[in-house]
Amino acid sequence: MRKIDPEKREAKRRQILDAAVACFARKGFHGTSTNEICAAAEMSPGNLFHYFPNKSALIAAIAEEDRNEMNARFARLAEEDDAIAAIETLATELLEQSADPVYARISVEIAAETMSNSEIGSLFADNEALIKTNLAELLKRGIAKGQIDPTLKPQLAATWLIALADGAVGRALMDPDFKTRTHAPVLLRMVRRFLEPPAG
Amino acid sequence: MRKIDPEKREAKRRQILDAAVACFARKGFHGTSTNEICAAAEMSPGNLFHYFPNKSALIAAIAEEDRNEMNARFARLAEEDDAIAAIETLATELLEQSADPVYARISVEIAAETMSNSEIGSLFADNEALIKTNLAELLKRGIAKGQIDPTLKPQLAATWLIALADGAVGRALMDPDFKTRTHAPVLLRMVRRFLEPPAG
Repeated sequence: MRKIDPEKREAKRRQILDAAVACFARKGFHGTSTNEICAAAEMSPGNLFHYFPNKSALIAAIAEEDRNEMNARFARLAEEDDAIAAIETLATELLEQSADPVYARISVEIAAETMSNSEIGSLFADNEALIKTNLAELLKRGIAKGQIDPTLKPQLAATWLIALADGAVGRALMDPDFKTRTHAPVLLRMVRRFLEPPAG
Repeated sequence: MRKIDPEKREAKRRQILDAAVACFARKGFHGTSTNEICAAAEMSPGNLFHYFPNKSALIAAIAEEDRNEMNARFARLAEEDDAIAAIETLATELLEQSADPVYARISVEIAAETMSNSEIGSLFADNEALIKTNLAELLKRGIAKGQIDPTLKPQLAATWLIALADGAVGRALMDPDFKTRTHAPVLLRMVRRFLEPPAG
């Protein structure tokens, strides 16, 4: 058997995942066939099969990648000394992401899957739980440092920060006037006022 | 032709709309047939036709009802002297609504329709625009009365309050720990801190 250069292999894998995400955003997880993904990735079904045996394996890889990205993001944020500034950075990044139509459409697809308690839904529900845990940790550190209001319960506050991020996706999809640049300062103000210890 | 008692007619209409909403929440606007709605409403297609000539008319009636309810809600809120208290009432009502799985599922269906720029999507997008206008009016009144921070721009603040309401629907769907009663106080705190004029 021919040996595949790991870098080339990774590039091919990337190409397939990007094509799959674009297809899923357009036609949904169920509405997309493996053939459509092959066409979008410009490769044969046999070739795609070397990388992902089926559509489920592809979706699992997308969920895994999403999880890895989130973990890397929280690892970076942990290096920030100011917990509110770290959460503002996260809010800004997620707001920018919400303006990406592919991201927004995939988010709605995932919501629909979670709603129907499908296997796909539970993959992404695990990611959600991980985000909440990471965010609650960040809030706890901020409370310990006196940067965040100690009367806030980290799990509950994390839930509403995630709700805001979900809401941004909703606004990006539903509100034709929604512009990341115009709306970002108001989001940051909301986040900061919510988290800051009361003045005085 | 037999005359139909207006009250009976209204009750029948109600019965059909409720059945249709339940079907749409379960199988989506496109996935639901008129026959399924007839079965759920326990009436014949011929009888249903007296009330709604087709599925589009039914969906339009649901959107209209949604609009009327929202307008009635804002009319009630306008009578409240304290603008922040009025917005807290609205937030509490919407949070309770988000815990209703039928409402949450219909919301995701509507997001999917808006996403694909369909006729259904545009019906509900009109409702969204109306909510923003009403909410911005309420914020303006609060600013004029000195109850709300005058540095907030009503349209932008309204957008993020709606994002929070959308986000609550997202949490109700995606987070198994999300409980209206536990999470409500944190939402109200977020809303109040966002809107209040700076202390001092």
